[in-house]
Amino acid sequence: MKIAVDVMGTDYGPQEMVLGAVQAVRTFGCEVILVGDADIIRELLRKYKADNDPKIMVHHASEVISMSEHASIAVKSKKDASVIVGAKMLRNKECDALVAPASTGAAVAAALLYLGRIRGVDRPAIATPIPSLTGTTVVLDSGAKVDAKPDHMVQNAIMGTVYAERILRIKNPKVGLLNIGEEETKGNEQALETYPLLQSNGQINFIGNVEGRDINKGTVDVVVCDGFVGNVVLKFAEGLALAILKLMREAILDGGIIAKVGGMLIKPSLKKLRKRLDPSEYGGALLLGVRAPFIICHGSSRAKSIISAIKVAMDFVDNDVIKHIGAKIAASKKERGINE
Amino acid sequence: MKIAVDVMGTDYGPQEMVLGAVQAVRTFGCEVILVGDADIIRELLRKYKADNDPKIMVHHASEVISMSEHASIAVKSKKDASVIVGAKMLRNKECDALVAPASTGAAVAAALLYLGRIRGVDRPAIATPIPSLTGTTVVLDSGAKVDAKPDHMVQNAIMGTVYAERILRIKNPKVGLLNIGEEETKGNEQALETYPLLQSNGQINFIGNVEGRDINKGTVDVVVCDGFVGNVVLKFAEGLALAILKLMREAILDGGIIAKVGGMLIKPSLKKLRKRLDPSEYGGALLLGVRAPFIICHGSSRAKSIISAIKVAMDFVDNDVIKHIGAKIAASKKERGINE
Repeated sequence: MKIAVDVMGTDYGPQEMVLGAVQAVRTFGCEVILVGDADIIRELLRKYKADNDPKIMVHHASEVISMSEHASIAVKSKKDASVIVGAKMLRNKECDALVAPASTGAAVAAALLYLGRIRGVDRPAIATPIPSLTGTTVVLDSGAKVDAKPDHMVQNAIMGTVYAERILRIKNPKVGLLNIGEEETKGNEQALETYPLLQSNGQINFIGNVEGRDINKGTVDVVVCDGFVGNVVLKFAEGLALAILKLMREAILDGGIIAKVGGMLIKPSLKKLRKRLDPSEYGGALLLGVRAPFIICHGSSRAKSIISAIKVAMDFVDNDVIKHIGAKIAASKKERGINE
Repeated sequence: MKIAVDVMGTDYGPQEMVLGAVQAVRTFGCEVILVGDADIIRELLRKYKADNDPKIMVHHASEVISMSEHASIAVKSKKDASVIVGAKMLRNKECDALVAPASTGAAVAAALLYLGRIRGVDRPAIATPIPSLTGTTVVLDSGAKVDAKPDHMVQNAIMGTVYAERILRIKNPKVGLLNIGEEETKGNEQALETYPLLQSNGQINFIGNVEGRDINKGTVDVVVCDGFVGNVVLKFAEGLALAILKLMREAILDGGIIAKVGGMLIKPSLKKLRKRLDPSEYGGALLLGVRAPFIICHGSSRAKSIISAIKVAMDFVDNDVIKHIGAKIAASKKERGINE
């Protein structure tokens, strides 16, 4: 298994990406191709004593697309950007999967341009696993397609089902439509039109509408939503979790000597909790619906986040997620009597 | 000042509502009219030794609209439901404000039917104050109008500005449009069309797009969004805060004897934190855009939540929020050359 890793463009620089990739090779025994500025990468490999590891290759890319760049313009003009070089390698089967810290827009544009969509998928979706009280809930779409049509929402439900089955190992995963009430009659136009389509689809285990509070409760395994709503909710989640941990630290520091001692005693427990809530533990989001495994890692990724992203990429390949998405989408189309 | 309080229909029953109202009278010196089943209310007043308080009145209502009922049907058919009776009293100026634990749908339908809209407001919006790292951020709309038109979003921005100025006492409050990126070119159709309208409006201090993570950061004072998105986000916030506190308790209990002792020592600090995160401390949401002060309290309201809701109602009346909304909306229309 060979994973290309775009090491450029994160907040903490290539060293975190390279370190994570080196550790992944040592932990999982996979091969990696590090894509980016070859001089910087080679220097970092020497630093981490990995410059002679035959499982670690370097592929030079002279440009970088930053998180804040206008994605579709940058993807077309910067032909030698690390994420583009990675996507081309993936298309040419020089690697099995790509892990890249790309902006949503750049990832989608690069994937559409160089990898193409799975037959029957109109729009790719980003699937983000988030921690719940009972395990993991996958939310999609978390930003690839705003103003999604009801058909796109159904495709999201199918792709999320495959993800939950193959990666999270959940049998017959429960799918919920994110809405403002449980009743079928609730919601905006998009939700009202999507509901009956999900209900009549034989490829998914649709249990009805779910509300915001159900995401963390673990009421369902797959939460289907529009890319706008999903993106707002997930960015809000990041902010809220950080805010709560910050307020907790403040509350303990304000609580006098007794609370401070207490704070020291619970430190290991809080560390575990922070780990559980930390998005980097979840190894990035998956760009589903395109023809090859593309894993998007967070712009603020640290080494451990890259290790888990590489693990997710390996699971993605090992479990033939793309083949299964194709099959389930085809079965759904057949069901509806649409033969392309 | 006379506040009508609908005491029926919450998860914890009339006793919490009545107790909260009694405590509010004792704390703030206001008058309250308790609306609902008179026998139950009188018995509770005896229990709380408040049956002879001249500042506490009882108004019988024979019906209740439950949280799960189909709002617009129930509002039309249950003429003697507590929330309807309260809305009629408000219309007839028998009270200065109404505090009711109504579902969003029932509150909006009752208010539109019996109170009417402020001139120039097309749709009411629900404004929910939420805690941020720097103070309080008001999010609106949190559920009154899904599929909001850009004009509705502008009205939300104006109403939120008045709320922040008058209730939160923020001078020239900063307004942000909830979106998936900071750039003007980001977003769904609704956001793209709303942005220039907010930017050119002289009645608000629009600082641009904000993302989900900005809500808790306190980047802006007023976050403008569609009722669908706002509702999903706020319900998610409730769930996430509870989930984090639960996971924290579990992490401490799993951490052995040392963590348990530490947990005991930080208990007072955690209690303060829970208070800070508890929606009931914020006294409910405001239904803005209708002609009289209507405060919606949470279905899971406890007594203390009612106390703060009554305080918010008093602030709402004292600060002439409705008059100021009317004036700012009129100024905005004038600016755009629309004279009704």
